[in-house]
Amino acid sequence: MTPPTDSTEIRDDIAELPASATTGASGEAGAEEATAHQHGYLTHNHKAEYLKRLRRIEGQARGLQRMIEEEKYCIDVLTQVSAMTSALQSVALGLLDDHLDHCVAEAVRSGGDDADAKLKEASQAIARLVRS
Amino acid sequence: MTPPTDSTEIRDDIAELPASATTGASGEAGAEEATAHQHGYLTHNHKAEYLKRLRRIEGQARGLQRMIEEEKYCIDVLTQVSAMTSALQSVALGLLDDHLDHCVAEAVRSGGDDADAKLKEASQAIARLVRS
Amino acid sequence: MTPPTDSTEIRDDIAELPASATTGASGEAGAEEATAHQHGYLTHNHKAEYLKRLRRIEGQARGLQRMIEEEKYCIDVLTQVSAMTSALQSVALGLLDDHLDHCVAEAVRSGGDDADAKLKEASQAIARLVRS
Amino acid sequence: MTPPTDSTEIRDDIAELPASATTGASGEAGAEEATAHQHGYLTHNHKAEYLKRLRRIEGQARGLQRMIEEEKYCIDVLTQVSAMTSALQSVALGLLDDHLDHCVAEAVRSGGDDADAKLKEASQAIARLVRS
Repeated sequence: MTPPTDSTEIRDDIAELPASATTGASGEAGAEEATAHQHGYLTHNHKAEYLKRLRRIEGQARGLQRMIEEEKYCIDVLTQVSAMTSALQSVALGLLDDHLDHCVAEAVRSGGDDADAKLKEASQAIARLVRS
Repeated sequence: MTPPTDSTEIRDDIAELPASATTGASGEAGAEEATAHQHGYLTHNHKAEYLKRLRRIEGQARGLQRMIEEEKYCIDVLTQVSAMTSALQSVALGLLDDHLDHCVAEAVRSGGDDADAKLKEASQAIARLVRS
Repeated sequence: MTPPTDSTEIRDDIAELPASATTGASGEAGAEEATAHQHGYLTHNHKAEYLKRLRRIEGQARGLQRMIEEEKYCIDVLTQVSAMTSALQSVALGLLDDHLDHCVAEAVRSGGDDADAKLKEASQAIARLVRS
Repeated sequence: MTPPTDSTEIRDDIAELPASATTGASGEAGAEEATAHQHGYLTHNHKAEYLKRLRRIEGQARGLQRMIEEEKYCIDVLTQVSAMTSALQSVALGLLDDHLDHCVAEAVRSGGDDADAKLKEASQAIARLVRS
């Protein structure tokens, strides 16, 4: 559960992580027991993948600042903004997919009020995505 | 034309800027002469504002990584992704606005092929934004 | 199961409906038995509501043609297109909500391959919505 | 300037057009004189094309009602909604393109307050499109 270190470029960001970032996970019960309660993106072992994609998105945000600093042409900046927006949307769709597959599906199988609450919450998140 | 230093939080990113980031601008002709050819966001003195907003967006990308590291609830992560997408869209709309007001308007006033090219290019950038 | 007749304006559209439109439903098994297999928007008794909203959207499409015929100002036409797009998105979000609540939830409760297929299909529909 | 009659399917919609729809255009000064004040989509002779596309969109709205009447599967309905949304977006982008090319470009060439007003108005329409 150690943070990925496949890239030296983002070392400082990881250093910034509050203590809870690492203890949060290790403080949980053993992996087997915890499985039932894990969020979608964890069950699928997608954590490292999302971190990698978000680090790339962070890099795009830095690249955009560089373009503005260097006074690049507006349209070229806009093209990069569109690419970054697409990358973000793609992360959102992936997280939502994992969430439906796991958190929501599990709540539905357990039944009761929690199932309804989870379904409603997912619908609201989808609406925010579609409208943003 | 020195990079803004109003925030210590992003010091490392600025240090990462390639040499061209600062020479790019200073290599241009004097400010007065350059005005006519400056990009929209410069004419409006919006450069510092965009840098500030992009730095905040970069911070949001870092915050999202922290949320994934800390294994936060999917829906909370998605809410932050939607907020970040909106912030990015807002930057795009601002850049486009400045671009139309200056680069495009100026090309139209000058007339000729460049006017047509600029108008077409702007339409394509708008299409990318609407569809992304 | 007679078509709604609260508006004379759309009489012709309803007349256009193929025979299967009305026999389709009545040809099904009794309501109790069918419940398990009904689509989300039927279980919720939302059929009449969606028809009403889609009729209004059809009216917006006709109104837009009228604006173009009357050579209205581009920006006024665009404002109506945005309103119509929002109305359509709202129908899509409603249908998706009902679908998750019923079709998907039911498949998940039944378990097996169908659950996975339904979840995957829903994710793909969400992606199309977010990207359109 | 007679309405297109290439389709009998939409005869009733055209019949619904208020008197002003046809007199609006014919009441204007001769084509040569009017050119300077015509909206973008007219200058480009795109009027018939937009009418055709909007009629097709109206048909999609009717098709969606038929699907709901026939109690088609939610996901199939959603796929059609996404297609219709894309068609609408495409009309919007076309209108905006024509508007920038003509109305805005002309105002910019004339200069003065109208240029600023037209540019601001266009930016606001773009923002509505991007956010809808």
